[in-house]
Amino acid sequence: MTTAKRKRTRPLILALLLLAAPLAGLAEDPTWRQVDPDNLVFMELAEGSVLIELNPRFAPKTVKQFRQLVQDHFYDGLGFYRVIDGFVAQGGDGSDLGKLSDVPLIKAEFERPWSNDFAFTPVQAPDLFAPETGFIDGFAVARDPGDDKVWLTHCPGIIAMARNEDPDSSRTDFYIVIGQAPRYLDRNMNVFGRVIHGMDVIQQIRRGPVNDNGIIRDDMQTSRMRSLRLGSDIPDEERAAAFVMDTNSPGFADLLRDRRERKHRFFHHEPPPVLDVCQVPNAGRVTK
Amino acid sequence: MTTAKRKRTRPLILALLLLAAPLAGLAEDPTWRQVDPDNLVFMELAEGSVLIELNPRFAPKTVKQFRQLVQDHFYDGLGFYRVIDGFVAQGGDGSDLGKLSDVPLIKAEFERPWSNDFAFTPVQAPDLFAPETGFIDGFAVARDPGDDKVWLTHCPGIIAMARNEDPDSSRTDFYIVIGQAPRYLDRNMNVFGRVIHGMDVIQQIRRGPVNDNGIIRDDMQTSRMRSLRLGSDIPDEERAAAFVMDTNSPGFADLLRDRRERKHRFFHHEPPPVLDVCQVPNAGRVTK
Repeated sequence: MTTAKRKRTRPLILALLLLAAPLAGLAEDPTWRQVDPDNLVFMELAEGSVLIELNPRFAPKTVKQFRQLVQDHFYDGLGFYRVIDGFVAQGGDGSDLGKLSDVPLIKAEFERPWSNDFAFTPVQAPDLFAPETGFIDGFAVARDPGDDKVWLTHCPGIIAMARNEDPDSSRTDFYIVIGQAPRYLDRNMNVFGRVIHGMDVIQQIRRGPVNDNGIIRDDMQTSRMRSLRLGSDIPDEERAAAFVMDTNSPGFADLLRDRRERKHRFFHHEPPPVLDVCQVPNAGRVTK
Repeated sequence: MTTAKRKRTRPLILALLLLAAPLAGLAEDPTWRQVDPDNLVFMELAEGSVLIELNPRFAPKTVKQFRQLVQDHFYDGLGFYRVIDGFVAQGGDGSDLGKLSDVPLIKAEFERPWSNDFAFTPVQAPDLFAPETGFIDGFAVARDPGDDKVWLTHCPGIIAMARNEDPDSSRTDFYIVIGQAPRYLDRNMNVFGRVIHGMDVIQQIRRGPVNDNGIIRDDMQTSRMRSLRLGSDIPDEERAAAFVMDTNSPGFADLLRDRRERKHRFFHHEPPPVLDVCQVPNAGRVTK
């Protein structure tokens, strides 16, 4: 009995309907687009490698400051000091390494005005948390046509700046969402990017104690960032190419339709024809 | 400058409003209830220890068979052979170790009739995926008053039996949800328990290749279960006590209200007064 045979007999819950494009063909596949190296951040942890795509269109000030911090090697060596399973991994406090920073505060950019220039791919209206959700430039967004606002949603894998009560108090500390989307934080934080590769690595970040709000008081016990590097600072020939789905492509529209209309015989109870924008698979692919 | 001082200056996104009961006092705290050892499964992985609470009220046949498999040491040594980040970790195929099983198939128990005996704590109506959500016995549920049915929802941490197309084809293979709730699977699977401790351990389970539907074809490469043991098979004096929130308690009602009404000054944009039943923190606590 071969392994291949055994595998065929295994029960599977229904497969994710991923478009199984071979990695080598992504550059020619209209469903995928290559990420601009200016918007790509390579984060190395002891646990592995992570790729982040920045979103300067929605968070220009935050992205500008984050890029500068990355180029200044500000984050290299810092730990994730507040990590709550199912919620967030937060890190990037310079005082950890005695970096008493004069880094400026970032003004709130929690949402932005709607523009008809957006290549908006609708997903769900109404959503539980917003009048409408969808994708723009590969990012999950929500919008309120009533006040002409649109914002990046708190889906798993998003990266946002932490802050104090003052809305304009973001500086260096950021968090990555590692659990069920905390959508109540939408429109309240500077969301500025998303993890496009290596969420399994992020999931290995050491958690803090549940009864102390996830805070790891001993810095030596934290998972640490070895280095962050901006894609455009890495020579072309050394840099891995990163691809994400073009959420404005016909291929992505097919994916959304297949996930909304569960016609497969596997479904004995037909699911309601709704989609959670944070549950649409949207990870990137990396080629060497 | 002390560490404690530094920590106070760190920006925090708003704390989870957990009821910070000291572990030692859980047995006397009306917000918590101790899990019946008959419904407790201790799962040991190389990555760490996991505790599962079974739900015989919603899935009596599945729980009966799973308990028997645990007591037969069926799962000891088996791997997680299909692991997709953000979706599920699936394991429990006996052929992995050459266990050609005569384990019977389990009839579908995807939902059950509503009963007024349920201590139902409502959370959200309407929810995106169901007319109403809430908690029963600590488990997230959804219900449809229209057809008098109630079911366990696919929240992160739930454990359910995998199956083939036939609704009555569950046997030994199970999956644990490790990402954004795949609620489209609700009412289609035998959900029979939830991880109440050690989801950070489950998150360390080795992922399979994204372009091969998460399947790890080489069994030697999988994360493996060292042992599963039923709580009631462990002598009282050796067994850790596990507590979960009593979702019918006033303390839990307070938690729900605090999460729905975000009155804290941190929120400059007041979130909509809705709750995602899968985003309510509901992890258990373990005492030695």
